[in-house]
Amino acid sequence: MSYERLLELIENKEYFTLKKELEDLNEADIAEYVDELDTKDTLLVFRLLSKEKAALVFAEFSKATQNEIATGITEGELATVIEDLYFDDMIDALEDLPSNLVKSLITKATPEKRKMINQFLGYLEDSAGSIMTIEFVKLRKQMTVKEALAHIKEIGLDRETVYTNYITDSSNHLEGIISLRKLVISDDDEILEDIMDTDVIFVHTDEDQEEVASTFKKYGFLALPVVDSENRLTGIITVDDIIEIIQEENTEDFERMAAISPTDDEYLDLSPFGHAIKRLPWLMILMVSATVTGNIILNFEDALSKMTILTSFIPMLMDTGGNSGSQSSTLIIRGLALGEIEFKDFFKVVWMEFRTAIVVAILLSLVNYARLLIFTSVNPTVALVVSFSLIITVVSAKLIGSTLPLIAVKLKLDPAIMAGPLITTIVDSTSLLGYFWLATNLLNL
Amino acid sequence: MSYERLLELIENKEYFTLKKELEDLNEADIAEYVDELDTKDTLLVFRLLSKEKAALVFAEFSKATQNEIATGITEGELATVIEDLYFDDMIDALEDLPSNLVKSLITKATPEKRKMINQFLGYLEDSAGSIMTIEFVKLRKQMTVKEALAHIKEIGLDRETVYTNYITDSSNHLEGIISLRKLVISDDDEILEDIMDTDVIFVHTDEDQEEVASTFKKYGFLALPVVDSENRLTGIITVDDIIEIIQEENTEDFERMAAISPTDDEYLDLSPFGHAIKRLPWLMILMVSATVTGNIILNFEDALSKMTILTSFIPMLMDTGGNSGSQSSTLIIRGLALGEIEFKDFFKVVWMEFRTAIVVAILLSLVNYARLLIFTSVNPTVALVVSFSLIITVVSAKLIGSTLPLIAVKLKLDPAIMAGPLITTIVDSTSLLGYFWLATNLLNL
Repeated sequence: MSYERLLELIENKEYFTLKKELEDLNEADIAEYVDELDTKDTLLVFRLLSKEKAALVFAEFSKATQNEIATGITEGELATVIEDLYFDDMIDALEDLPSNLVKSLITKATPEKRKMINQFLGYLEDSAGSIMTIEFVKLRKQMTVKEALAHIKEIGLDRETVYTNYITDSSNHLEGIISLRKLVISDDDEILEDIMDTDVIFVHTDEDQEEVASTFKKYGFLALPVVDSENRLTGIITVDDIIEIIQEENTEDFERMAAISPTDDEYLDLSPFGHAIKRLPWLMILMVSATVTGNIILNFEDALSKMTILTSFIPMLMDTGGNSGSQSSTLIIRGLALGEIEFKDFFKVVWMEFRTAIVVAILLSLVNYARLLIFTSVNPTVALVVSFSLIITVVSAKLIGSTLPLIAVKLKLDPAIMAGPLITTIVDSTSLLGYFWLATNLLNL
Repeated sequence: MSYERLLELIENKEYFTLKKELEDLNEADIAEYVDELDTKDTLLVFRLLSKEKAALVFAEFSKATQNEIATGITEGELATVIEDLYFDDMIDALEDLPSNLVKSLITKATPEKRKMINQFLGYLEDSAGSIMTIEFVKLRKQMTVKEALAHIKEIGLDRETVYTNYITDSSNHLEGIISLRKLVISDDDEILEDIMDTDVIFVHTDEDQEEVASTFKKYGFLALPVVDSENRLTGIITVDDIIEIIQEENTEDFERMAAISPTDDEYLDLSPFGHAIKRLPWLMILMVSATVTGNIILNFEDALSKMTILTSFIPMLMDTGGNSGSQSSTLIIRGLALGEIEFKDFFKVVWMEFRTAIVVAILLSLVNYARLLIFTSVNPTVALVVSFSLIITVVSAKLIGSTLPLIAVKLKLDPAIMAGPLITTIVDSTSLLGYFWLATNLLNL
């Protein structure tokens, strides 16, 4: 069913056909369509879905649409939807709904479930605990393959995955894992203990989701077990959630690197004030710190007033410095995020950047020198000063841009902060100091 | 086994123990350790691996280590390793090895395989065809669940996945899919035709890998079928490859946005000249285009020489403009990449940015005005000129920064090019023109 067809069925009030066609549509497609509808039609379509489908679709909605639905349907209806969600999706939804609604929903749950919900809501944001789910298959090592498959056949429909299954002892310690592939290709009477994989890779509940994502990337697994501080199996994380987390973490880096305070909201879901709050703090800090550069210029006021042409090269020097620095910091920040670079590579990185900077700087300044002599009437000594300043600018920018993110790692800060905007502010000063020093000395100002 | 243990075993020449312990280690861990070793030890460890393990480890290596191995072992040994790789990993390896080696390896393959290799090597880089694999399970709709499971038991070990299985007709057209979960929870004598999912979501061989990744993210699948121009099933793409592709695509965006020409090489694997080539083109273009800004300053040389203090505010205005512009362009580029924003949202975006810019600009300029009056002895009219210029700068920067990426999409260009560096160069001119216009008019220069 296309979006146009959906609109047509709504308009013609063909709700019976609509209901039928919605059941055959993938939940991700339904969510995408509904996100485009107004509140009235959103609620209409949502109410036409079967109980199971409604839960699947609800999990796919954006935060904004989840809230729209939650406030538009009755609390009873909402409780039914929430009840049918996979556990991790339920926690996600509860985290974002208005808190009075959450409280009232939680009181309706069984005491056991309530306890578990509160435990999960208590995990640190962005930790493995906060993204794991509890719907996994537990097996015992004494089981035969046939018994294991029979068990999976019985409960498999309600589990988020049946493709990796977990073998625990009586106190819930993880002893091994076995994939459904292994079960299906093994003989019926084999004992799990003999065929399970005991070299299990797992994560802890308090581990950061970014590290969890790296573990997935490294091993290519479909699911990872999560254990608590006493090494008991408490949940699993599945690969489909990891793709979203990787995108989230990347978005956070993109935003930090552009001097934006990250939030989880989609661009169009935020108000202009929300956007202003994300952007103001860094702009303010960077604006105030640019007064340092202003003061450097004031100190050389005399030289500049004697030879105002020097002013006209300031933008070119500042921009080239800023760009050279961002190039280096971006490559290092990204290399760190992907695990291709570590702090121990510090000197390798500095040496690489130094040589790269020399090559880049000399070529840029030659082109610049030639350009000034051929296309302008600038005095050759001034051209020389500008071109030498360009070398100082590019080399210092690349060294500053590459070392600051590494130092951030050592200080346990997010290296993404040490990107373009901050680097530029620091590079500007170095660049202008070099420029004015060369100018006053070589031009006798 | 830890990395230290590996070094110890190598040093003590305990190769028998080493061989045994390596077999129990995950291939991703072995690859990580080997990447740290020198060529001699790399080859030593690699040769200790069993045939199957060697292939798995080889697929995990970085390009640089793959080349180191390929040139260090005999061609016969290499052929054995390559032979044992999953088909998609083999194609990846062949794409990066020296071409004379590839030619000679291909001549050793069976004619049928050779044809297929050449077909796969011919798919456009970064297309679905270039990343798919051919090791999947094909079933017929007439089969019973029992027959299907027996078939999977027989061939399942050699397939990249058995969790999603594909049902095709005699001319290889995709008729449906069935998950292993569905097979395991269904009764033995059910017919596949009755339980298979016929609403199959697939991609085409020539589709871009970024779109493939979006499809995975949207639906949360473990595998996606790939069909050719005549809708015949030609391969599948599995989710573990997608995580790498997402990171690759994000790295490409990070690099483009920092004025770097993207390559696939890891940071430390490139030479300084390689790095210089990635960085020079944009630095050169941006350096030359910064002469526009220089010329604007030259045009106002008289005004500046009469009141040199005006020069000292240029860096603050340029930096704030650059930062405001990058914030907007980053948010829009990212929103476009994640599918949260489309070109049809053009006016919504402009209106959002305009209101955000007004809030941000007024607050910044108030702080700036107060700062100038309280902490400096700047003439109040000059302070007013600077603060008004700041408003013009921020508003124009945010409008330019948000519209250029959207225009790029319309022109079918990569929006990531319209980021910080390019925006800054354009914003600088607007900002300085506004500044000098206000200065000459309000200060009668």
